[in-house]
Amino acid sequence: MFDTETETDPDAQFSAELKSETLKGLVNIISALVDEVKFTLTPEGMTLKAVDAAHVAMIEMKVEKEAFIRYHAEDCEIGIDLDKLKSVLRLASGVDVIRMEQDAEKGKLIFKVGNITRAMTVLDTSGMSDPKVPDLHLKASIGISSDELKRGISAADTISDHVSVKATPERFILSCEGDTDSVSLSVGKESLAELSTDTEVCSLFPLDYFSNIIKAVPGGTVIHIELDNDYPMKLLFSIADRHVLVNYLLAPRIESD
Amino acid sequence: MFDTETETDPDAQFSAELKSETLKGLVNIISALVDEVKFTLTPEGMTLKAVDAAHVAMIEMKVEKEAFIRYHAEDCEIGIDLDKLKSVLRLASGVDVIRMEQDAEKGKLIFKVGNITRAMTVLDTSGMSDPKVPDLHLKASIGISSDELKRGISAADTISDHVSVKATPERFILSCEGDTDSVSLSVGKESLAELSTDTEVCSLFPLDYFSNIIKAVPGGTVIHIELDNDYPMKLLFSIADRHVLVNYLLAPRIESD
Amino acid sequence: MFDTETETDPDAQFSAELKSETLKGLVNIISALVDEVKFTLTPEGMTLKAVDAAHVAMIEMKVEKEAFIRYHAEDCEIGIDLDKLKSVLRLASGVDVIRMEQDAEKGKLIFKVGNITRAMTVLDTSGMSDPKVPDLHLKASIGISSDELKRGISAADTISDHVSVKATPERFILSCEGDTDSVSLSVGKESLAELSTDTEVCSLFPLDYFSNIIKAVPGGTVIHIELDNDYPMKLLFSIADRHVLVNYLLAPRIESD
Repeated sequence: MFDTETETDPDAQFSAELKSETLKGLVNIISALVDEVKFTLTPEGMTLKAVDAAHVAMIEMKVEKEAFIRYHAEDCEIGIDLDKLKSVLRLASGVDVIRMEQDAEKGKLIFKVGNITRAMTVLDTSGMSDPKVPDLHLKASIGISSDELKRGISAADTISDHVSVKATPERFILSCEGDTDSVSLSVGKESLAELSTDTEVCSLFPLDYFSNIIKAVPGGTVIHIELDNDYPMKLLFSIADRHVLVNYLLAPRIESD
Repeated sequence: MFDTETETDPDAQFSAELKSETLKGLVNIISALVDEVKFTLTPEGMTLKAVDAAHVAMIEMKVEKEAFIRYHAEDCEIGIDLDKLKSVLRLASGVDVIRMEQDAEKGKLIFKVGNITRAMTVLDTSGMSDPKVPDLHLKASIGISSDELKRGISAADTISDHVSVKATPERFILSCEGDTDSVSLSVGKESLAELSTDTEVCSLFPLDYFSNIIKAVPGGTVIHIELDNDYPMKLLFSIADRHVLVNYLLAPRIESD
Repeated sequence: MFDTETETDPDAQFSAELKSETLKGLVNIISALVDEVKFTLTPEGMTLKAVDAAHVAMIEMKVEKEAFIRYHAEDCEIGIDLDKLKSVLRLASGVDVIRMEQDAEKGKLIFKVGNITRAMTVLDTSGMSDPKVPDLHLKASIGISSDELKRGISAADTISDHVSVKATPERFILSCEGDTDSVSLSVGKESLAELSTDTEVCSLFPLDYFSNIIKAVPGGTVIHIELDNDYPMKLLFSIADRHVLVNYLLAPRIESD
């Protein structure tokens, strides 16, 4: 039986403590795209790159060691099943501290929340590739509140399965056209955190992908969007007091005219 | 694409603003009976008359222009799909203001909530008839709180599919008889807002219709009931600071002895 | 039709009043094990003994007359369908008073909540046996908060369908082993209300039974556990200001080695 009284192992490759709400924030965002993930650990923090099965969206995340209460790691990789990580999160309330430690010998990751110890087998990372994140230079930059985007996404929900994202020098516009109905979110420059483009740019995106990632971003977060004509959209934002940095790329839907 | 930057059109046949909670109150009540509705607009307000497909219940509603923050209408009719109207309501919180305007040329009704613009195609009203609301003179008048009726209806829920509604000179009684169990709500004259009848009157009604309309009435509303022996029951109440007046008629279930 | 204006019958075999939250507490616990129950009434209070269909668990409950606001009973038995009792509870909020009275002539139990009267046919108790509750002398005694056990049970939920319960002279340990994962709750003597055993004792129990009863116990309750090696576990606790006493026995799952 798993020995529940093990104290922190000073020789562990990875050992850390963080607030459960920080871990929950991470997991919400990653699980908007994938079910399993490979974290790459260094003494300075964790990173991950993941692409969904259909290769429509890609996420790159950097978790600085400052996002943790305590963090120790040697260079290594850990593969995690996100559903299992969610079951650990259900054991904790937002203010609880979650301790985690890799048990290298047994190939397990051990979580401690209060008096509960949860051991989970890590995934084999050998088959999990590192997607190459393209370096895009896009014409328009927009800074907008996650709450405004969430409202726009909700409004679009029953209208169509794709959404047009447009920036003009004066406005940011999300719009959706159905057979009989249409909906749009239009925010003027004065209500945006940032709006910078010389010309009008516009691309069409799959609504479900866009919706999943926006719903996973905490309220009150400013999302930096980079946009161009018929190009991927880049979403940049941070959570956990700016110690978790997210770069999300979503491929456009090209309409054949 | 729908132009999101249109300002209020001074030539629109219909243009109004109201609190989202007022619109939600209306929609809840109407959708207890029908899925599509025809509003008849005049410069003084809106009215609607609707009957359900089985012709068991009928609703007549008068929305005075004072229920709106701003109201302008020429004489016209607008047909609306209530499910779509509910999707507009989901964009707003109770205190939000909803602006609406008919775009006569395109046959659309346009809703604005914050930065969101939602355009919906109106329904063709030519096939939607105006039911004739009968002028009934019923023996008993009862005034009772919607909360008390909601409790009575909930209690009846699993017992039977019809409910007996009775008034005596001293009490108002809702009762339901099942094969093994029974339930009743009995409220004395002293706890009623009104009770006026010379003799005992009683009719039997389908529980689902009665339940649907009572659950749609806001808590804390006094419902005026008019009742007779084996006659339709009339429910009269107002919402939105008495600026929305509702007259609901429910046909009795006649027991063949 | 059931006469709703009957006042309390001084000749009733059973007549009582209690807070709806007290009745709800009882019903939650009993319905964790059975759907129908026979209460044995005496002038001093009510008792029940019940065993589940699979004979895996047994509950013995004593409801002292002090748990009631008013209590009068002659020696008798009442059989109740717990689902119907739950429908009565849904008519009341936690602070409401529920009055109940046996209508011996009609074989009905009558509940009154506010202006609502609910009559239900009682069950025939002649076929409902009284299980004999074994008198066990178990080596270990543990006192632990229901909240701590609820957390442990939740953690075990997806891992396995049985749970090991262990006491050592120093700790109380709940643990669950799956194929790849494991979870444990380990609470030291200093964090327990009580821990008394000379040697380590351990038994294995079906998780669903253990989970159902623990989830039905109110938060903040101290549960007294008695435990031995491959023996039934005894859970003792009280609710309703110690006026409702519960003794729950759960048979072990014996592993054939």
